[in-house]
Amino acid sequence: MKEFKPLKVINLGLQRFEDDLKAQGVEVQGVQWNPPAAVSASAIDIIRKNADRIEAANTKVQEIIAAGQPELLGLEPARTVIPGLHEDMLLHAGPPISWERMCGPLHGAVIGALLYEGKARTPQEAEAMAASGQIEFAPCHEHSAVGPMAGVISPSMPVFIVRNAASGNQAYCTQNEGLGKVLRYGAFSPEVIARLKWMEEVLYPTLDKAIRLLGKIDLKGIIAQALHMGDEVHNRNRAGTSLLIRQLAPALLRTASSAEAAAQALDFINVNDHFFLNLSMPAAKCVLDPASGVPCSSILTAMARNGTDFGIRLAGTGDQWFSGPALVPDALYFPGFSKEDANPDIGDSAITETAGWGGFAIAAAPAIVQFVGGRAADALSYTQQMYEISFFENNNYQIPILDFRGTPTGIDVVKVIRLGLTPFIDTGVAHKEPGIGQVGAGVVSAPLEPFIQAYEALARTLQE
Amino acid sequence: MKEFKPLKVINLGLQRFEDDLKAQGVEVQGVQWNPPAAVSASAIDIIRKNADRIEAANTKVQEIIAAGQPELLGLEPARTVIPGLHEDMLLHAGPPISWERMCGPLHGAVIGALLYEGKARTPQEAEAMAASGQIEFAPCHEHSAVGPMAGVISPSMPVFIVRNAASGNQAYCTQNEGLGKVLRYGAFSPEVIARLKWMEEVLYPTLDKAIRLLGKIDLKGIIAQALHMGDEVHNRNRAGTSLLIRQLAPALLRTASSAEAAAQALDFINVNDHFFLNLSMPAAKCVLDPASGVPCSSILTAMARNGTDFGIRLAGTGDQWFSGPALVPDALYFPGFSKEDANPDIGDSAITETAGWGGFAIAAAPAIVQFVGGRAADALSYTQQMYEISFFENNNYQIPILDFRGTPTGIDVVKVIRLGLTPFIDTGVAHKEPGIGQVGAGVVSAPLEPFIQAYEALARTLQE
Repeated sequence: MKEFKPLKVINLGLQRFEDDLKAQGVEVQGVQWNPPAAVSASAIDIIRKNADRIEAANTKVQEIIAAGQPELLGLEPARTVIPGLHEDMLLHAGPPISWERMCGPLHGAVIGALLYEGKARTPQEAEAMAASGQIEFAPCHEHSAVGPMAGVISPSMPVFIVRNAASGNQAYCTQNEGLGKVLRYGAFSPEVIARLKWMEEVLYPTLDKAIRLLGKIDLKGIIAQALHMGDEVHNRNRAGTSLLIRQLAPALLRTASSAEAAAQALDFINVNDHFFLNLSMPAAKCVLDPASGVPCSSILTAMARNGTDFGIRLAGTGDQWFSGPALVPDALYFPGFSKEDANPDIGDSAITETAGWGGFAIAAAPAIVQFVGGRAADALSYTQQMYEISFFENNNYQIPILDFRGTPTGIDVVKVIRLGLTPFIDTGVAHKEPGIGQVGAGVVSAPLEPFIQAYEALARTLQE
Repeated sequence: MKEFKPLKVINLGLQRFEDDLKAQGVEVQGVQWNPPAAVSASAIDIIRKNADRIEAANTKVQEIIAAGQPELLGLEPARTVIPGLHEDMLLHAGPPISWERMCGPLHGAVIGALLYEGKARTPQEAEAMAASGQIEFAPCHEHSAVGPMAGVISPSMPVFIVRNAASGNQAYCTQNEGLGKVLRYGAFSPEVIARLKWMEEVLYPTLDKAIRLLGKIDLKGIIAQALHMGDEVHNRNRAGTSLLIRQLAPALLRTASSAEAAAQALDFINVNDHFFLNLSMPAAKCVLDPASGVPCSSILTAMARNGTDFGIRLAGTGDQWFSGPALVPDALYFPGFSKEDANPDIGDSAITETAGWGGFAIAAAPAIVQFVGGRAADALSYTQQMYEISFFENNNYQIPILDFRGTPTGIDVVKVIRLGLTPFIDTGVAHKEPGIGQVGAGVVSAPLEPFIQAYEALARTLQE
């Protein structure tokens, strides 16, 4: 009698084939494979012919990013420091978007900001005002600022001032509000507005005085340390927040007008391990901004989402946005919520990945898999993959478990297109309705569409 | 012509063969191999026949250790809280030792403590007094206390009071003095004594008031978190120190008699990432002490070194010490120092390894290889090996990179002898002369001798 060996299959491509075979008891080894991205043959040709120019430009960008030295100088109301921000303007996360196309959480945050500013007395009034065209909406990124989730910044909100000591430019971000019902997830109830007022009237002056006494706080040092302490400074900021408190606390003792105000400020920071996110984000922003406009460079200077669109900017094409639809992250959902409740990817926080932290440095933060799902080995493998699409390794920021290898830095659109591999982002997930808040955390790959556009645009600049 | 293949050698045992062959350009693969330890055939026979009794006793010890809940209650002068401590007594690290046999750093610390207490006016007077028999020396471990390096505790020194909430017992440890010239490394110059006085008069009351306001500080929670943040709470305590400051700072603001005193206290802790060591040590001690005296158990309750002898205690043999010569660690030496300068292994800090932290949890702290030498993979492999000689995995303390596997806990002398594999300790290295201080940090395996004695003694108790 003839014997048949059991069938063993290697499946390349469509997951469905693999699932079907497995259902029939066949041993299948799936192989991840992405087809080359759909860019034009002419663009490929131009990029190939200009490889040397691109390489030289990217080397210049590498030098700019590696030299970056973010430091915290203090806080001021947004209206006094953010360039171009006027009284009828609100800044938001991600690429430009009209009121009509905004997602639920961004709508909610806009309503909340108008209530906070006293421009509207009720949510209905605020909504009418936002829809009337009376309010100008602009991306944070176009005003040297960044904001997590909805990322709304209004003129009265105090913002951290973060300077890149290497190049002198500054970036701005609000103070983190904490967890639960907060403006950045689109909540605008009275307690949300009251908290924002307390942050303006108590937290801001208390922190600012302490920081001014210190002169500055070295964020580069804190971030480098935090990567040695299990943070990736996007979704895990427990070490960063702790190291910040270590520096702030003695200065608070020496400067606080009242011990109780200072203690309240510390208590507020203490219960919120995400507090440092609102410093790692402007740190990344001020390090990347000086690279914007370096001709011929294929390195990203921003990735940002407004909850509807995912936008990127390229050093070689300056302020231009390339956008595509934002995706819904694969997430670990909090009890009672599911993917049905999730808003597509939102927030400027992917600026941390653009700087080589966050999902790119997730190997430094294996404990984060409790928060975003997966196993420790996944954290290592995500970072390993990101080296494939990065231009260099930034030795200022090292990953101990990889024997202090520098973080993968400088996302190269040419490599992204060549490999069909988009950046990996680990992120919080907002409820799609305003005001409900965070429903989970997870991982998401950037959509390919903006990278295709950026690649084509870069090719056009090289042809000119 | 006949061809000779290049010689390839696998070397089992003596390192010298390997080195000689390598020097001749031969490719050698070294294999670590230890002969079974030299215990008596009769002891092996008794241990084998009583395997079930030992297993049952060890299970009881496992329950005691796993239930441990260390919490910090406050501080008091040693004389008022440490049981049995009297005015003419000094406690020291490690097993019992006479003045004559003490190493340089311990001599220096005894001199310093007598100067600090005002019992002697000059180092010469102190030395004469110590040699006269007027001063009683006793191990910290015999008085519910632990001390890093020389580990000297004198009656006026304030000590942390750490309670095991599960069993009600307490353990004590001094406040960490910081780096450089300090008593625990045998320094006794005027600035060392002045610092100890400041710690008694300013630091102690300031910290104590803050801790009493909080009621208690949960050390179990801090240690579990610190293991997620790159500490192993023996030689790396940056996260533990940071998390402690986060809890202390708001309470300091609310209780300090003067803001400047509180700020000075925070500044003092802030510049010393080892501050938390003097809390992780009594935390380990109070968790292990209730296991002492559980009949038939082969699990260690202490490993401690006085710089001359390395001593261990076993649950099944209670307060008895088993000692052998302390070894000199393999270390990364600070510039200007070498192994010639190093004192043999010293300090009670190996209580952290005994509790499943330190070298046993070093996989959680890959960044520590910068301090103690080696590569990240070594950190993983050290912890993996320690599972082989541990009785259980303590899920209260998890290692993220090993997918949250519990730390290897409960060092089992039967396994140590069977495998010829002694506990791995990562440690600071003291200069052998008093007063010079730390000269490096490194790794050391416990000597086998005390384990052989403990094994034989356990066998005798099983025969009775």
